[in-house]
This record gives sequence, C-alpha cells and structure tokens, in this order.
Amino acid sequence: MDKNELLALLQPDIEHINHTMRREISQCGNARLQHILEYALFNGGKRIRPLLTVLAARLCAFSRMPEGLAAEDELQPPVNLYQLAAVFEFLHGASLLHDDVIDNAGRRRGKPSANSVWDNTQVILAGDYLHTRAMTMAGTAGDHHTLALIGFATAAMIQAEFQQMQTVQERNLSEENYFAVLRGKTGCLISAACEVGAYFAQGSEQHQLALRNYGDALGLAFQVVDDLLDYQGDPAKTGKAIGNDFVEGKMTLPLLHALQNSTEAASAHIMDLLKGEAAARAAKITEVHGFIEQHQGFAYARQGAEALVEAANEALAVFPDCQSRRVLAGLAQYVLTRQK
Amino acid sequence: MDKNELLALLQPDIEHINHTMRREISQCGNARLQHILEYALFNGGKRIRPLLTVLAARLCAFSRMPEGLAAEDELQPPVNLYQLAAVFEFLHGASLLHDDVIDNAGRRRGKPSANSVWDNTQVILAGDYLHTRAMTMAGTAGDHHTLALIGFATAAMIQAEFQQMQTVQERNLSEENYFAVLRGKTGCLISAACEVGAYFAQGSEQHQLALRNYGDALGLAFQVVDDLLDYQGDPAKTGKAIGNDFVEGKMTLPLLHALQNSTEAASAHIMDLLKGEAAARAAKITEVHGFIEQHQGFAYARQGAEALVEAANEALAVFPDCQSRRVLAGLAQYVLTRQK
Repeated sequence: MDKNELLALLQPDIEHINHTMRREISQCGNARLQHILEYALFNGGKRIRPLLTVLAARLCAFSRMPEGLAAEDELQPPVNLYQLAAVFEFLHGASLLHDDVIDNAGRRRGKPSANSVWDNTQVILAGDYLHTRAMTMAGTAGDHHTLALIGFATAAMIQAEFQQMQTVQERNLSEENYFAVLRGKTGCLISAACEVGAYFAQGSEQHQLALRNYGDALGLAFQVVDDLLDYQGDPAKTGKAIGNDFVEGKMTLPLLHALQNSTEAASAHIMDLLKGEAAARAAKITEVHGFIEQHQGFAYARQGAEALVEAANEALAVFPDCQSRRVLAGLAQYVLTRQK
Repeated sequence: MDKNELLALLQPDIEHINHTMRREISQCGNARLQHILEYALFNGGKRIRPLLTVLAARLCAFSRMPEGLAAEDELQPPVNLYQLAAVFEFLHGASLLHDDVIDNAGRRRGKPSANSVWDNTQVILAGDYLHTRAMTMAGTAGDHHTLALIGFATAAMIQAEFQQMQTVQERNLSEENYFAVLRGKTGCLISAACEVGAYFAQGSEQHQLALRNYGDALGLAFQVVDDLLDYQGDPAKTGKAIGNDFVEGKMTLPLLHALQNSTEAASAHIMDLLKGEAAARAAKITEVHGFIEQHQGFAYARQGAEALVEAANEALAVFPDCQSRRVLAGLAQYVLTRQK
C-alpha cells in the first residue's frame, strides 16, 4: 500500500476526528483559550494516535462479523469512538504544549511554538485544559476500564520524563533503560490508543492484546526512527537541527550502540563531551556523526526499527486479512520511510 | 463550635485522607517524583476540600437513615469515598504547583516553593502527574457523573484564569466579573467537592443541590476573606506581603467597592496606578489601603463574606440537625475568623 493510497483511505476518519476536536474546543468558553487550542491542535499533526483507535476498533468489529454480513467500509463507528480517539490527540497536544514550555522551544512543526506566540502562563493553562478535557472524555465516552488504561499511559509518560532526566544526569548507558524511557514517553500512549479502540469494539482478549502489542512495537519503532532522523534527517523536512539530541546530552540508540562497540579511549572521549557544556557538544556534531557511522550505530538502530515494525505486523497476524489490517500494516511500514 | 472542637472532630477523617494520599503517591514509580509530590502535598494544607466531600457524604447518609438506626459517628465511609475526597486535594495541589511556576513564586505556606527546590520542568510534570491521577481516580472510584462534575470544575478553573488575565488587562471593574472569576477559580472545585460527596452517598437531588449551594457560598466567602487578608492580614501569619494583589494589578472586592464610591478624580488616580508599573504600585500600598478604608471597601467586603457564610448555613437548613451539619456550619464560620 503506497503512501497516497494510505492517506486516501484514512482521510474520512481524519475528517471525523478533526470535526470532533473542533466541536470539543469550541465549547471551551473563552475566545483566547480557544485560539491557543486551535493553533496548537490544527498545526499539521498527522492524527496517528486517534486513527489507531478508530482502526483498531474497526478491525475488531469486522473480525467478529459472520463472513459477508457487512462490507468493512460500511462499519461506520459511533460518535463516542471518535471522542475516545480525540482523547489521544488531546493528551498528545497537552504534552507538546508543556514540553515546549519546558524546553523553551521556539518552533513546532515549522511554525512559531504556542509559547512564543502567547506566554508560558497561557500555554501551561491551555495544556492543563486539554488534559482535563481528555480525561473527562476518556471516562464519559468510555468506561472505568478505558479511563484506567488512559490514566495508566498518561502517568507512564510523566514517569518516563523523570527517568529520562535521571538517565541524562547519570549518563546511564543501558539499552534496557533507553527502551524503558521510549516505551513510557511514546509507546504507552500509542499502545493505549490501539487497546482502547479494541476494547471499545468489544474485541476478544486475544485481539485486545494483539493490538496493544502492535501499538507498543509501532510506538518504539516510531521513536527509534525519530532518534535516527535527529542525526540523519533533512533539517528542512524535520524542522530540527542535526544532532539536537546529542547537544542536549541525550544518548539515543545509535550513539549507545557505537559507544558499546568502540575502544575505551574513543568512548571516554565522547563521555567527556557528554559531561561538558552543550556548546562544546554542538561544535562536535560532525565528529560524533562519524563516530556513530564508524561503529555501525545507525545501521544497528535502523535494523532495530525494522525488527520492531516486523513485530508490529506479526501482532496483526491473529486478524483476518482485511482493509483495516492492511492500513495498520501500512502505517507501520510508513514509520520506516518517513522523513519528518 | 470552637476551633479546637472542630479540629478534634475532623482529625480522624484528616488521617484517613492523608493515608489515602500517601498510599496513592507511593505508587508513582519514581523516587524523585514521589519526593516532589510529598513535599507539595504534605505542607500544612488543611484538607478543606476532601473534608467537605466526606462530610457531605456523611450528612446525606445520616439524613436518609430511619431515626435511631445508627449513631452518626458510626457511619464509617467506604475506602473509595476517601479516594474521591483525595481527588480534590490532588487537583488543588496540581493547580498550586502550576501556579507557582507561572508566578515564579519563591515561597508557599512559609516554606520554599517546590519550583525553588527543584526546577520548573519537574514541577510542571509533577503537577501533570497529580492531575492525571486525580482524574483517573475520579472516574474509577466514582462513575460517569462524578467524573463529569469534577471535569467541569477543573475546566472552570482554567477558564477563570483566562478570564482573570483579561480582567487585569482590561481593568474590568464589575462586581459581576469579580465574582465570576472567584467562582471559577475557587468556588467550582469546592462546590464540586460537596456535590460529589452528596452524590456518592446517594443523597436526594434536593440534598445534592443544597450541598452544591453550600460549597458555592463557602468557596466565594473563603476567597473574599482571602482578598481581605491580602490587605489586612498579618504577613507573619499569611506568609504574603501586604497589598500583593494590588501590586500585581488585581482588583479585588475591597478596591472595587472603594473605586465605585470615590470621586472621579480619586478613582482616576488609582486607575492610573493600575495601568502603570508594579514597582510604582508597591510604593503606594499605604495610600491605597487608606483609600479603601476611607470608602468603606473593607467593611463592604467583610459584609459580603458574612452574607455568603449566612447563605452557606441557610443551604444546610434542609438537613436534620446533626453533628455533620454542625461541623459544616463550623467550617463556614471558621472562614470568617481565619487569619491565614
């Protein structure tokens, strides 16, 4: 399935999701707040998380149908599924707003970030508003279990932020730690988006688990590719400077692998850079890029991402071959080829 | 009921509430995060909001009992009522953490604020964690309706922050606007704390409404007294400098009333100060204090607070005379006499 075909198939759901989000934020009761929310949420986001909820629900619903009873594309989801789907975009948006304040970021997706248009106060509060609406929608469009799943994922995101801060401070080198942070920061919300869709459509426990596993692998793959793009991406496309993670002192998979496979002296040199000043690191990006290349760090991370995408596809094997399954497989494949 | 008697009656519930909060934050999965949460939550807070939830529930449960069936103090609430009660302290704590980051506050309740011990990043994230746990507990210890009530109150808090920013910018003078901001910032969460308790105990609609009205009046009275203490309190007790609101350009009820009752020239002079620099306002606190006094601003606000406490007590009149009702009446009375 090529990218254009995939996008065409996803378009109707994207429109439903956007409509749901717009309706929701139009009820926020304050013109300024609404403006910030619109700016932050309608900013070129691909709606991956809410799409996963809708696709997972449709896949489970279709898989339970007696053969030939309904065409898959006639399975029009109920309104509250789109509300649950929007929850994930709201939570993602809330965390981006707070992240941009925390990082003092100037740009987001090629535009001035919300915190550079308004001030930190208003952006923190707008993030809180999205957060509170998302959690309320989670428990009212869904049930106890839905809310517990989403609450768990949101808490995991915050725990992972703390773990990452410690990792940076302690320069903790383990791959296990790297993946634990990735899972918390990205994987948990993505796997919850899938699982909530499956649960909503009353998928069997096997189907719920399969979609959770799909989401987990997809989320990790997505983030490993993100870490590769940080070193190898085209800044004109990614909107980020090359080697930004290294400058911030973050050790991602390519560098981790290179450090584990280099001589002690070479590794110590990089570690000294990591302990030093950001400005000194910024001056060494080309050198570090060469170091990672020389020790197969990029190839290793690429292979890791490919293995994760394979695992995501394997998780889908319990479902009958159908359009929703092919779209989910297409999304996983797209993760490997994305350039931004 | 004097203050010591009130405190003695409340103590067992306070201990249950604290125990519930400690158990909850001990599960946060990160030592640093847990430390910040403990610091922020066990910091001399009076637990007014969670107490209201427990007391409202007990009052409704007792009111439904056939006479003489159970002694009121034997009505031991179930565990999940304390969880719902803790939700309100968590939400209050989350908003204080974010407020202190927003205001760049150095102190909170006489101790260094969390953001001056850790950094903004960690404090924003700790606030998010409390928020997400609170909303999850709201919907799992409670039901759809509970979560909707709490979500509404939390959203109202944020809307009121935006409204207040506009009020400050536009120097909007209406009392209506002043009370609308107060209700959103404080009243909604307090009335929700009462209503959630009443709903949890399956109080009648009349009883739920009565407790919501009690909480609304109590919350407004509490905040009017806060605004009085800002001008008239003892900084050694309140932990805040005299006239802080005026320095920040906030027009509270005492000043509002004085402006409405002064000559045009005197009023224009104060308005010029409000449009100017904070440092210029700080130098004029004594003058402004005299201006408010001269135009009965303090007396007017004090009468307003007294009328609100009376309204809170009137709302309780639908309940039989019993200990929980007397404690709630005592809390309302305490609002008028508090000095911090």
